[in-house]
Amino acid sequence: MRQDVVKKVSVHPKGSLETLSQREVQQLSEVGSGSAYELFRQCALAILNTGAQSDNAKTVLEAYRDFEVRIHQEDRGVRLELINAPADAFVDGDMIASTREMLFSALRDIVYTASDLGQPGADLSSSQGITDYVFHLLRNARTLRPGVEPKMVVCWGGHSISIEEYKYSKKVGHELGLRSLDICTGCGPGVMKGPMKGATIAHAKQRIINGRYLGLSEPGIIAAEAPNPIVNELVILPDIEKRLEAFVRVGHGIIVFPGGAGTAEEFLYLLGILMHPDNADLPFPVILTGPRCAEAYLRQLHEFVGATLGDKAQARYQVIIDNPSEVARQMAKGLKAVSQFRRERDDAFHFNWLLKVDESFQRPFDPTHDNMSALQLRRELPAHQLAASLRQAFSGIVAGNVKDRGIRLIEQHGPYEIHGDPSVMQPLDRLLQAFVDQQRMKLPGGTAYEPCYRVVS
Amino acid sequence: MRQDVVKKVSVHPKGSLETLSQREVQQLSEVGSGSAYELFRQCALAILNTGAQSDNAKTVLEAYRDFEVRIHQEDRGVRLELINAPADAFVDGDMIASTREMLFSALRDIVYTASDLGQPGADLSSSQGITDYVFHLLRNARTLRPGVEPKMVVCWGGHSISIEEYKYSKKVGHELGLRSLDICTGCGPGVMKGPMKGATIAHAKQRIINGRYLGLSEPGIIAAEAPNPIVNELVILPDIEKRLEAFVRVGHGIIVFPGGAGTAEEFLYLLGILMHPDNADLPFPVILTGPRCAEAYLRQLHEFVGATLGDKAQARYQVIIDNPSEVARQMAKGLKAVSQFRRERDDAFHFNWLLKVDESFQRPFDPTHDNMSALQLRRELPAHQLAASLRQAFSGIVAGNVKDRGIRLIEQHGPYEIHGDPSVMQPLDRLLQAFVDQQRMKLPGGTAYEPCYRVVS
Amino acid sequence: MRQDVVKKVSVHPKGSLETLSQREVQQLSEVGSGSAYELFRQCALAILNTGAQSDNAKTVLEAYRDFEVRIHQEDRGVRLELINAPADAFVDGDMIASTREMLFSALRDIVYTASDLGQPGADLSSSQGITDYVFHLLRNARTLRPGVEPKMVVCWGGHSISIEEYKYSKKVGHELGLRSLDICTGCGPGVMKGPMKGATIAHAKQRIINGRYLGLSEPGIIAAEAPNPIVNELVILPDIEKRLEAFVRVGHGIIVFPGGAGTAEEFLYLLGILMHPDNADLPFPVILTGPRCAEAYLRQLHEFVGATLGDKAQARYQVIIDNPSEVARQMAKGLKAVSQFRRERDDAFHFNWLLKVDESFQRPFDPTHDNMSALQLRRELPAHQLAASLRQAFSGIVAGNVKDRGIRLIEQHGPYEIHGDPSVMQPLDRLLQAFVDQQRMKLPGGTAYEPCYRVVS
Amino acid sequence: MRQDVVKKVSVHPKGSLETLSQREVQQLSEVGSGSAYELFRQCALAILNTGAQSDNAKTVLEAYRDFEVRIHQEDRGVRLELINAPADAFVDGDMIASTREMLFSALRDIVYTASDLGQPGADLSSSQGITDYVFHLLRNARTLRPGVEPKMVVCWGGHSISIEEYKYSKKVGHELGLRSLDICTGCGPGVMKGPMKGATIAHAKQRIINGRYLGLSEPGIIAAEAPNPIVNELVILPDIEKRLEAFVRVGHGIIVFPGGAGTAEEFLYLLGILMHPDNADLPFPVILTGPRCAEAYLRQLHEFVGATLGDKAQARYQVIIDNPSEVARQMAKGLKAVSQFRRERDDAFHFNWLLKVDESFQRPFDPTHDNMSALQLRRELPAHQLAASLRQAFSGIVAGNVKDRGIRLIEQHGPYEIHGDPSVMQPLDRLLQAFVDQQRMKLPGGTAYEPCYRVVS
Repeated sequence: MRQDVVKKVSVHPKGSLETLSQREVQQLSEVGSGSAYELFRQCALAILNTGAQSDNAKTVLEAYRDFEVRIHQEDRGVRLELINAPADAFVDGDMIASTREMLFSALRDIVYTASDLGQPGADLSSSQGITDYVFHLLRNARTLRPGVEPKMVVCWGGHSISIEEYKYSKKVGHELGLRSLDICTGCGPGVMKGPMKGATIAHAKQRIINGRYLGLSEPGIIAAEAPNPIVNELVILPDIEKRLEAFVRVGHGIIVFPGGAGTAEEFLYLLGILMHPDNADLPFPVILTGPRCAEAYLRQLHEFVGATLGDKAQARYQVIIDNPSEVARQMAKGLKAVSQFRRERDDAFHFNWLLKVDESFQRPFDPTHDNMSALQLRRELPAHQLAASLRQAFSGIVAGNVKDRGIRLIEQHGPYEIHGDPSVMQPLDRLLQAFVDQQRMKLPGGTAYEPCYRVVS
Repeated sequence: MRQDVVKKVSVHPKGSLETLSQREVQQLSEVGSGSAYELFRQCALAILNTGAQSDNAKTVLEAYRDFEVRIHQEDRGVRLELINAPADAFVDGDMIASTREMLFSALRDIVYTASDLGQPGADLSSSQGITDYVFHLLRNARTLRPGVEPKMVVCWGGHSISIEEYKYSKKVGHELGLRSLDICTGCGPGVMKGPMKGATIAHAKQRIINGRYLGLSEPGIIAAEAPNPIVNELVILPDIEKRLEAFVRVGHGIIVFPGGAGTAEEFLYLLGILMHPDNADLPFPVILTGPRCAEAYLRQLHEFVGATLGDKAQARYQVIIDNPSEVARQMAKGLKAVSQFRRERDDAFHFNWLLKVDESFQRPFDPTHDNMSALQLRRELPAHQLAASLRQAFSGIVAGNVKDRGIRLIEQHGPYEIHGDPSVMQPLDRLLQAFVDQQRMKLPGGTAYEPCYRVVS
Repeated sequence: MRQDVVKKVSVHPKGSLETLSQREVQQLSEVGSGSAYELFRQCALAILNTGAQSDNAKTVLEAYRDFEVRIHQEDRGVRLELINAPADAFVDGDMIASTREMLFSALRDIVYTASDLGQPGADLSSSQGITDYVFHLLRNARTLRPGVEPKMVVCWGGHSISIEEYKYSKKVGHELGLRSLDICTGCGPGVMKGPMKGATIAHAKQRIINGRYLGLSEPGIIAAEAPNPIVNELVILPDIEKRLEAFVRVGHGIIVFPGGAGTAEEFLYLLGILMHPDNADLPFPVILTGPRCAEAYLRQLHEFVGATLGDKAQARYQVIIDNPSEVARQMAKGLKAVSQFRRERDDAFHFNWLLKVDESFQRPFDPTHDNMSALQLRRELPAHQLAASLRQAFSGIVAGNVKDRGIRLIEQHGPYEIHGDPSVMQPLDRLLQAFVDQQRMKLPGGTAYEPCYRVVS
Repeated sequence: MRQDVVKKVSVHPKGSLETLSQREVQQLSEVGSGSAYELFRQCALAILNTGAQSDNAKTVLEAYRDFEVRIHQEDRGVRLELINAPADAFVDGDMIASTREMLFSALRDIVYTASDLGQPGADLSSSQGITDYVFHLLRNARTLRPGVEPKMVVCWGGHSISIEEYKYSKKVGHELGLRSLDICTGCGPGVMKGPMKGATIAHAKQRIINGRYLGLSEPGIIAAEAPNPIVNELVILPDIEKRLEAFVRVGHGIIVFPGGAGTAEEFLYLLGILMHPDNADLPFPVILTGPRCAEAYLRQLHEFVGATLGDKAQARYQVIIDNPSEVARQMAKGLKAVSQFRRERDDAFHFNWLLKVDESFQRPFDPTHDNMSALQLRRELPAHQLAASLRQAFSGIVAGNVKDRGIRLIEQHGPYEIHGDPSVMQPLDRLLQAFVDQQRMKLPGGTAYEPCYRVVS
C-alpha cells in the first residue's frame, strides 16, 4: 500500500538538544550517518507513525521504504531533515509537537548515547557504574525532577490483553490520576496505554495540567511498539536490563497487571531485587491486580511465588482483584511510606539510590544450553538468589518457546537441561502450562505446547 | 436503586466567588434558600453526578431524593454544605476539582444572577441592554480573555446521534485541536462531547495545556444534560435566547453537525442573523458537515435553505462532507479573516460587538395559535426577516410535535394555521418529513407523523 | 520652564478595564469628559510625571498647562488619548508599563467610581455599607488575593523627614523584605517610599518576583504627591476616611515611623479602633519605631498615649528604637498570630472583616468652632471614645494651625474652645509644642507658635 | 574586629547541582576537600559577605579566619556545611536565597570544574576546543537560553571610578532596562554595579520580572570583588582569557565606560577580534561612552585607536558623550542588526559561534622580557595582528607598572625593550601618560611615573 508522505521537511529541536556545542552537533551527525543510522531511522519512523492506525513494525517499515532522516550541522545547532516521512505526523505542513519531541528524544537517546557524548567516563564494569549510567541517561532526558513528592507509579503488563483487561487498566489509571499520581509504562499499546489514558481524563478532572506520562523504551522495542501519543516524556534506554533498572529507580511503586511470560519475568525481576537482604526495610509498594476474569491467572502467579520464593516474597506485594479504587488507595498509602522513608534517610525523591540492585540483575542473561544447565533452582538457596535464577530460567524458557535464537538452539541441541528441585520445577511447569491454556503465550504456528526443557535433579 | 452518598461535606469556592463581600454572601444565602433553591439544587445534583454512568435526569433526581445543598455565610465568604451527595463526585473524601468548579459556576450563575448582585442596572428592555447583559454574565464567569487571537469554535448538533456521527464529530474536534483551536458547545453528550474529546487528545499531542472547552448551558437543560467532564469552563445563561446570543458573540466560527429539529432551528437562527444587511461584510465562518452517512440529510438542509432563503443565504456557509481535516482547515482560514477584520475595526477579540442581532432573535417566541397564524412566510420578504419567521415557525412546529405545551395546544385547537407561500411551505414540509424518515425527530408514542399545521395561502 | 512633551498619543488599558461593555465605556467617556474630568486630568498628570525630578504639584500643573486627556469609546473598549503629555513617561514613543498601569488605575478609581458603575447599590448610610464599599473598591482594583498568608505590612510616617529617618525606613523595609513581607504605604516620597525601596532590594535578594508594593492614595493627595515608581498596585480611594479604613482592613500589621501631626492623627485613629471592646481579642501587630535621633519624639508620643488613653492603649503596640531587624522579627511574629487567628475564626486573609470600625471613624470630622467645642476630652470616657475625640481634636488643631480653612476660621472667630480635663489637655499641649520644637509641624510663615485653641474646663 | 558569625549551618543546592549522581557528589567532596579547597573557601567567603559593608578581600579573609566550608555526600546529593559563616548572609537562621544560589554557583564552577566532571573530553589544545569548553561551562551554568532575542549588553569599565562616572553608568543601565535589555558585567562594584542597579529600577518600571543580571567572574577576582547582590546569574570562568571569550560570545553588544588600564586592555582585545578579516561582516555593536567629565579620556582613547589601528578600527564602534538615552537607542538598534544577521545565518542567539576569536586571544600572555621584546608593534602589520600585539604590550606595561611579578622583573632586568614604530609607540606613550595624569592608573607608592619600557626601533 502506498502511503501519503511529506517529501522533504526540516525540524529543529526543543529541549535539551537546543543548546549543543558545534563539536557535539558534528559528532551527532557523524554517528547518526554511520553505525547508529539504521537504528535511529527505524525508531524515527515508528515515532512518526504514532498517530496512524497500523502499529505493525514490519508493515510500517515496508510502507515507508524510502523514508530517510538526515542529521545536519548548522551554526545554530542540529537540524533533522526528513525525506518521505509519513504525512500523518504533520498538520498543514507542521510536525505535531509531541512527535517532534519524541523524535528528538530518540536522537538524544540513540545517537547521542552512541557517540561518546552521552557517557563521559561511564564505568560499565561495576554495578555502581551501571547505576550511575542509568542515572545519567535519565537526567540527560530531564526526567529527574528534584523536590517533587513520590508519585510516579509504574504499570507493567501485557501488550496484547483482552478488552476487559484493557478497560480495567484504564480504570486503575483513572483512579491513580484522581489521586494526582503520575504514570510510567514501557510505551506501546495494551497495559502500556490503558493506565495513561485513564489518568489523562482524571488529571483533566482534577485540573492537573502537568501530569506526567513517562515512557521507558528500548531500541529493540520502540521500532515495533511505538510510544502511544499520550506519552509526554520518552526515554530510550540502551538495553532491557538498563530499562528495568530505570523502572525500579525512577518509579516509586509498581502495579503488575495480567500479561504474558514477559510480564511474569519482570515480576520475578522485581521480587528478586526486593528480596535482597539490603532492601528488607525499604518500602516499595507493589500491587498485583486485574479484573475478575483474570483472577485465576493472578492467583496462580501468586501461588507460584509462594511455592518457590516463600511467603516472605508474597509479603512484598498485595493482590487486589477487580477493585481499581482500592488499588489506587493502597498505592497512595504505600507512596506516603516511601516519602517518609526517603525523608528520614535524606534520599532523593527522584532516584531510588538506596535500592540495592545486585549485579546479576544488571547483566543480560544469554540462554545457551550451558548457561541454562548451570542454573541452580533449589529451594535452599537464599530467596533473592533463587529469584535471580528463576528469572533467568524463565527468560530462557520464554526464549526457547518464542524467540528466534532460542528456538533454533532447541532445534539444534534438544531441550534445555535444568537442574532444580521438583519443589521449584513443578510449580514453574504448572505456571507455564497455565499461560499456554489461557493463550497468554504466543506459540509459533499454534501447535500444542511441547516443553523446551527437562528437569535433571 | 440506593446510591452511595457522602452524608455531609463542606466546600469552599475557587475563582470569582472567593472574594465576596459579606453583603454579597448574605444575599446569596437568602436567595439560595428561597426561590432559586430548587433550581440550584437540581443543577448541583446534575453536576455532582457528572462522572457517573446514568445521565438520565429523572433517574438521578429520584435516586438522590434526599440530597440537599445549603449556602452558609462565613466571615471568610461563602461555603456550601452538601447533604447526601453522590459519592462518585469525591475521591477519598475530597470533591473532584472540576466538579467543585462547576458547582460554584452554577452557584454563580443561578443564585448570583437571581439575586440583584448579578445584574446591577441591567436594562433588559432594549436590544442593546440584552447584549450588555449577556456580556456581563460572560465576563462575570471570567470567560472573556482579552487579547487572545480568535480561536473559539462553536459546535452545534444533536444529542442523540448515531455512533458514526459521534465518531465523526470527535475526528473534527481532533483536527480542530491539532490546529490549536478551542471548542465551545452546549454541554451534555453527543455532538456536545465528541469535538471536546477529540480536541483534548489533539491538544495533548500539540502540548497545549490551556485548551478551552467552554460549555454554555441553560437551567432547563443542565439538570437533564449534565456537562461532560471535559468542560473546563461552564456558564449557565438564564434562558435559551441569551444562550444563543452568547454562542454567536463569544464564538468566532460555528460548525453545524447533523442533529434533530433543534439543530435546524439553531442553524436558522444563525442564518437569520448573518443575513441581516448590517452583517453583510462581517466575516463569520460557518460550516455544515457530517460523515458520508449523513450526506442526504445535509444536502436536504442545504437545499431547503436555497429554496427558502436563496443562494445568498447558502453563500454564508460551506458544506463539507466526510472530511474532518478540510473542515478544520477551512475553519482556521475563516478565523484568520475574523482576526483581520476585528483588528481593522478595533473590535474586541473576546466579544463580537459588531454583530447585529435583531431584537426578534433576542426575544422568546411563544407558539400560540395566534402567534403562529400571524407569521408571514413569504419569499418576497427580506431574507433575514423570512429567516426570523421561519425560525419561529420551525420552533412552533417542533413544539406542536414534541413539546408538552404545544401538543396540548394542538389537541385543543387543532393544527396551527400558517400563512405562507407554497414556495416556502413545501420545502419546509419536505424537510420535516425527512427528519421523521431519518428518525431525527422523536415522536411521542412512535405513531405515524401527522402534520400539526396547515398552510393557508 | 518649557517641558518636553509628546504631542499626541493613544493608550489602551491592561487589567480590569480591558473587558468593559460598550455601555460602560460610554459612561466612562461621559463622566470623564464632565464633572470628574479635571480631577482625573490632574491625577493623570501627576502619574505621567512620576519619573521626573520635580514632584511639586503646582509646578507640574503649570509646566504642562496644555496637557489634556480624552476618553474614547471604541468597539474594542476604552482608549485614552493624551495631548502634550510629559515626555519622561515614554521610551522611544511607548509609554512606560508602570505608568500606563497607574494611569488606568486612576481612570478605574476616579472616573469609574464617579459613574454609577463603581457602586452598584452601595449603601453609604450605614457603617456596614461603608465597609462593603471599601471592600468593593479594593476588589475592583484586584487588590484582594484570596488564600495568601497575611504579609501586608502598612508603613505610616511623614513625607518630609530627615535623611537619617528616611534611611532608617529603608532599612526597616529591607528587613521586612528579607522576611518575604509586602509593603503598603500611602504613595509619595519619604516614609511612603523608603520601605518600598528597601523591600525591593531585599525581595530581589530572596528571589521573590511577585513582591507587592501597594499604594493607597486619595484624589486630594495623589495630584500633589505622585506615587513613587516602585508602587506596583495603586488604588485611589474616594476620601481620607475610606483610605484609612482600607489601610486597616487590607494591612495585616502597621509600622508607625516618625512624622508630623498627620502621622500622629493616623496613630490615634488606629489606637481608637483597636481600643474598641469588640477588638479586644483581635491580634493586630503595631510597632512604633525610628532611628536613635527620633527617640525623643517616639518617647513623647508614647507617653502622650499613656497619659491620655492609659497603659491598655500602650499595650496595643511596641516601641522599638533603632533596630530594623528586631522590628521585622516582631512584625513577622505578630503576623503569625494574625494568620492563626483568622484561620481559627474562618476569616478571610485578604480583608479584615472581624475588625470593628466604629462609625465615628468612618465619617469625616469638620473642624468648626461648634464641632470643636462639642468635643469631650475627659479621662473618664471609655478609652476608644476618648481616642476618637482626641483624633478629632487633633485633626481640628492641625487644621487650625496649617490648613487654609482652619486658619481662616481661627482668624474670624478666635481660638477654638475645647472642653477637656487638664489631665488630657496638658499632655496634648506638650506634644504639639514638641512637634513645633522639632520642626515636624510646618507653620505658615515661620512665626512663633501661637495656640489656636484654649481649654475650657 | 570580631564579626558576628553563624557557628554551624547546612545548606542544600537549588538548580543544576540538585540532581547529581552519587559518583559526582563523591568527586565533588574529594576535590573540594583537596586541591581546590582554599580557592573555593575564599570565594564562598566573598559571596557570603556580599551584603556587608566592607568589600576589601583581605579584611574579610582576616575577619573570618576560622570560616570553613565542608562538602558532604548524602544519598540525596551534595550538602554544604558552613562553620563560622558571616551572620549577614542569614535572616533568622536561613541563608538569603541569592547568597545560596551564588554559593552553589561557586561550587559548580570551581570544584565541579576542578574535578573531571566539568570537562569530559575537553580539548584545550585547539582554538575550537577552547571555545567549546567556554560554551560547555556557560551551558552547565544554565546561562544559555535558546530562542531569546539578542538583548544581553555587556558593560565594561573601571571598578574605582568617580561618583559622576558611576552615576552615569547607572543612568545608562536605566535607559537600557527601559528598553528591556539585560546587563552582563564582571561582578563587583563601580561600572560592574551601576548599570545593573539602573536596569533593576527600569525593569521594575516596565514590569519585567525576569530581567537578567549576569556576572562573569574569575577565581582571582571574585575573592577580592564579591558579586554585587543584584547579580542573579553568576558564572566563574577558570581564567581571564576564558572570561573575556565568554563576554564576547554570550554578549550581543558591548558598552565601554571609562576605566583604568585594564579597561583599555579589554577594549583592545575586543577591537583585535572585531578587526579579524573573518569578522568583517559580523555586526557587533560597540559603544564608547561616559559623562561630560570623561570626554577628554574617551577622545584620547579614540585617537589612540585611530593613530595605531586606523579608521577601520574606529568604524567598529561609536563614541557617545553624556547621552544615556542615545547610548541605549543605538545599542537597541545595533542589537536588531545582530538579531537579523543571526537569523539569516541560522546562528544561535545564545552563543556567538560565528565570531572568529584567534588563538592568540585565547592564550594567556606572560610578560617576560623575552616575550615583550619579541612583540612587533608596526603599522604595516594587519590591523588585527597589531591589535593583538598592542594588547599584549599593554598587558605587559600594566604588569610592569602595577603587578607584583612585573615590577620584580623590571627591578631585576631593567625596562622592557619593545620593538615598534614610533608611529605606534608614541600614541601608546601619550595614552599611558594620560592615564597617570587622570589618576586612572594606580601607581605603587604614588611616585612619579617612570616608564617601564623603552622603544627599540
